[in-house]
Amino acid sequence: MIFMEKFLPPKGTKDFLPAEAERIQFVADTIRRIYEKYGFLPLDTPAFENFELLSAKGAGESVRNEIYNFKDKGGRELGLRFDFTVPLGRVVANNPNLPKPFKRYQIGKVWRYDNPQALRYREFLQADIDTVGTANMLADAECVAAVCECLQTLGFKDFFIRVNNRKLLDEIFEGLGVEKNKITDVFRIVDKLDKIGLDGVKAELEKNNFESKKILEVLKFKFEDVEKKFENSIGLKELKEFFKFSKSLGIEKFLKFDISLVRGLDYYTGPVFEVMIGSLKVSCGSGGRYDNLVRAFGGQDLPATGISIGLSRVVAVMESEGLFKNFESKKAFVAVVNDFVRGDAIKVCRKIREAGNICSMDLTGKSLGKQMEFASASGFAYVAIVGPEELKKNSVKIRDMKSGAEKNVKLADLEKYFSKL
Amino acid sequence: MIFMEKFLPPKGTKDFLPAEAERIQFVADTIRRIYEKYGFLPLDTPAFENFELLSAKGAGESVRNEIYNFKDKGGRELGLRFDFTVPLGRVVANNPNLPKPFKRYQIGKVWRYDNPQALRYREFLQADIDTVGTANMLADAECVAAVCECLQTLGFKDFFIRVNNRKLLDEIFEGLGVEKNKITDVFRIVDKLDKIGLDGVKAELEKNNFESKKILEVLKFKFEDVEKKFENSIGLKELKEFFKFSKSLGIEKFLKFDISLVRGLDYYTGPVFEVMIGSLKVSCGSGGRYDNLVRAFGGQDLPATGISIGLSRVVAVMESEGLFKNFESKKAFVAVVNDFVRGDAIKVCRKIREAGNICSMDLTGKSLGKQMEFASASGFAYVAIVGPEELKKNSVKIRDMKSGAEKNVKLADLEKYFSKL
Repeated sequence: MIFMEKFLPPKGTKDFLPAEAERIQFVADTIRRIYEKYGFLPLDTPAFENFELLSAKGAGESVRNEIYNFKDKGGRELGLRFDFTVPLGRVVANNPNLPKPFKRYQIGKVWRYDNPQALRYREFLQADIDTVGTANMLADAECVAAVCECLQTLGFKDFFIRVNNRKLLDEIFEGLGVEKNKITDVFRIVDKLDKIGLDGVKAELEKNNFESKKILEVLKFKFEDVEKKFENSIGLKELKEFFKFSKSLGIEKFLKFDISLVRGLDYYTGPVFEVMIGSLKVSCGSGGRYDNLVRAFGGQDLPATGISIGLSRVVAVMESEGLFKNFESKKAFVAVVNDFVRGDAIKVCRKIREAGNICSMDLTGKSLGKQMEFASASGFAYVAIVGPEELKKNSVKIRDMKSGAEKNVKLADLEKYFSKL
Repeated sequence: MIFMEKFLPPKGTKDFLPAEAERIQFVADTIRRIYEKYGFLPLDTPAFENFELLSAKGAGESVRNEIYNFKDKGGRELGLRFDFTVPLGRVVANNPNLPKPFKRYQIGKVWRYDNPQALRYREFLQADIDTVGTANMLADAECVAAVCECLQTLGFKDFFIRVNNRKLLDEIFEGLGVEKNKITDVFRIVDKLDKIGLDGVKAELEKNNFESKKILEVLKFKFEDVEKKFENSIGLKELKEFFKFSKSLGIEKFLKFDISLVRGLDYYTGPVFEVMIGSLKVSCGSGGRYDNLVRAFGGQDLPATGISIGLSRVVAVMESEGLFKNFESKKAFVAVVNDFVRGDAIKVCRKIREAGNICSMDLTGKSLGKQMEFASASGFAYVAIVGPEELKKNSVKIRDMKSGAEKNVKLADLEKYFSKL
C-alpha cells in the first residue's frame, strides 16, 4: 500500500491552496456577475473535443502543436480544449435553433502545451464572452465594455485595450502587393513583435521574402494616417463604427488604436483586441471578430465576435500590484473545553451556521490552548469557547481574535449576535 | 477553410446550453455556500495528474481501466482525474505545513471512461468535502451533515444516507475465516449487489471459492444484530460514535445503517456512506474514511474522511422530480425603434445595468416587431422600448412581458425603477 515516491502536480500545472483559491474565486465571481449583467448566458462544454475539430484550418491549426491530444479507449482522437471559441463554434453549428444573437459566457480551464514561464502555465483559467449572429460593431463594443467594467470593478486603474482590424490590415498588405494567401504568414510574423522586437520581425520578414521596409512602415501608422491614406477601407469603416459605439458605452478612454496588433489565431476576420493591465502593461486577454468559424464547422453562416479574459493572469497581476484587499473575515471557530460539553459545542456551531456565518468547530479533542493556537493560525475572526462554567449560565464566551476582547453571550442570543456581525 | 463534416461533443460528454447551465450553476452555488458555511475552504488541483499516482494501489487501482490516460509532449504519463480524493491526498502530502485538521471543498469535473448510460456520463461534476488530520468520528458526521443540509436546501424531502463501516466488515469477514488479503475481493463482489442482485453476488462468491452462505447471511444483519454479535468490534464503536455525533448535528433521521454497503474504492478504511435521493432512490454521492491515503503518497500519517455529491446526478434528479422552481427572471431587453436613437438606447441599457439588473439590447438593427419576437423567445421579463416619441418626453416605454402592461418611465427614474423590481 505504501510507495514513498513524492508526487507533484504535472509540469506546467499547479495546485491552488485555499488562500489563493479564494482569491481566484473572488475574481471569477466578480467577472461572472458582470458578464451576466451584460446579458451573457452560461454555456458549458466538455474539457476535450475531437482533435480534428480543434486543429482544423480556420480553427486551431496554428496552435496544433500546443494541444494536449490523446486517444480515448475507443480509439477516438481527442484533445483538451485550448480556448472556448472553437467549442462555441461547434455548439452553435450543432444547435441551429438557438435564438440569435446568442450571447454566452464560459469561465473555466483551458490547456496549452507551451513553455511554462512567469505568469504562464499549461493549465489556466479563462473567462470568455461572445456574441454570435450579428455583424454589428455594437456587439464588439459591448464585449469590450463588459471587460472594461470587470477590470474597473477589480480595481485596475491604468488598463487599456489595444484595438485593430484584420480587414484593414488585409487591405493595406494587399495594397503593398503581398499575395492574398501569404497575408496570414505576414500576420504570424508581425504577431511576434512583442516577443522578438522590431529587428526580429524585420529579419523574419526578409527571410520569407516580404518587403520588410514597407511593412514596418505600416506598423507605425497612427489612426489619423489610416484615415487619410485608406479612407475607403472597410476595416476603417468598422473601426469608426466600433469607436462610435464605444463612446456611447463610455469606454472610449480605455481604447488605443494599434495597427501592429494582429493576434495570432487564424479565425479572426475583423476587429481584434488585446487587454493590457498593471504597471507592467501585461497582456491579460484578447479577442476579436471571427465571422467564418460557425460556417466552417458545418453550421449556418453566422458572424461572431468575442473577448477573453485570462483569469489566471489577472489574478497574478492583482497579486503583484496589491489589488487584493484583505477579505474582511467573519469566520468563527467553536473551541471545546472538554469532551463532556462536545454535544453543546456542536449545537453552538449549528446556531452560528444558521445565522449564515461560516463556522468550524474543534474536531480533535485537543487542549483548549492548542485549539486557540489552531484558530489563530487558521485566521478565524471569532472563537466561541464552550465550557462547563459558561454553560451553567446558559452562555458561551466569544473572543474577538483581532482585539482579544472577550464577551459572554447567552445561548439564546447567539444567532442574533452572529447575524449582526 | 470550410469542412462540412458535422462535429458533436465526444462520446460520453455533452454540452450544457444556457437553460441547463443556469440550473447547474444554481445547484453548484447552493452547495458551495453551504460547504463554506461548514468551514470548508476551496482547493483547486489540475485536471490531470501523474498516471502512476492515479492508478496506484490504495488509490485508483480498481478504476485503472476507467482513467483517461495519455502522454504529454514531454513523454509524461498523465491521466485525467477520476475523483478529488486522490489529488487531495497528494496536495496534503506535498504541503506538510497546512494547519490540521485541513477542511477543504472542491467542485468541478472528473472523468471516467465507463459505459455511458442513463444519468451517467464520462465527464461529470462532483462537489466534495474532506477533512484531513483527525480520526474523530465528529469529522465524518460533520461531512454527512453538510451534505444533508445541501439536499434539504435544494428541496429534496425523501433522501437518506446509507451508512456502514469497513472495519466492521473486515472484522466480521475475518471471523468467518476469509483470509486478510482476500477481503478486498469479497468487498468488490459484494459492491456489485445493486447491479447484479443477491443471486449474482452468490454466484460470483462461489466462483471465487468464498463461503457464500455465511457471507450472504451477514449482509442481512440489522444494527441490533451487530450490537449483539460483535460487541467488541472497533467498527461498531466507530459507528456508535458516528451516530452519537449525528444526533447532536440533527441528521440522525437521514441515516440508515446498511451492512451490505462497501463502496468499491480501495482506499476506504472506516465509515462509508452512500447518498440516496429522489423517488427512485438514486445514488448521488458517496464517501467515507481513508486513513492511509496521505501516507501512501509519501506524506505524514494523517487520518482523513470525506464525502462527494454527484452534482450532475443531483441536477438530473431535480429535473425529473420537478424540484427546479422557475427562476424569477428580471432580465430586461432594450428594443431600439430606429438607428437614430441607438446612442440613447445604449445609455438606457447602461442605466439598467448600473441598477444591478441583467440587461441586453438590440445588436442587429432589425425591426421593432422582430426585436419583440426575439425578446419573447429569449424569456426577457421586461422590454424597454427606446423611440423618438418617448425620448422627446425624456422617457422610455417599459413593457412587462408577462402581463403585457406598458408604462412610460422617465430616463431620470430608470435606475430607481429597475433597482426596485
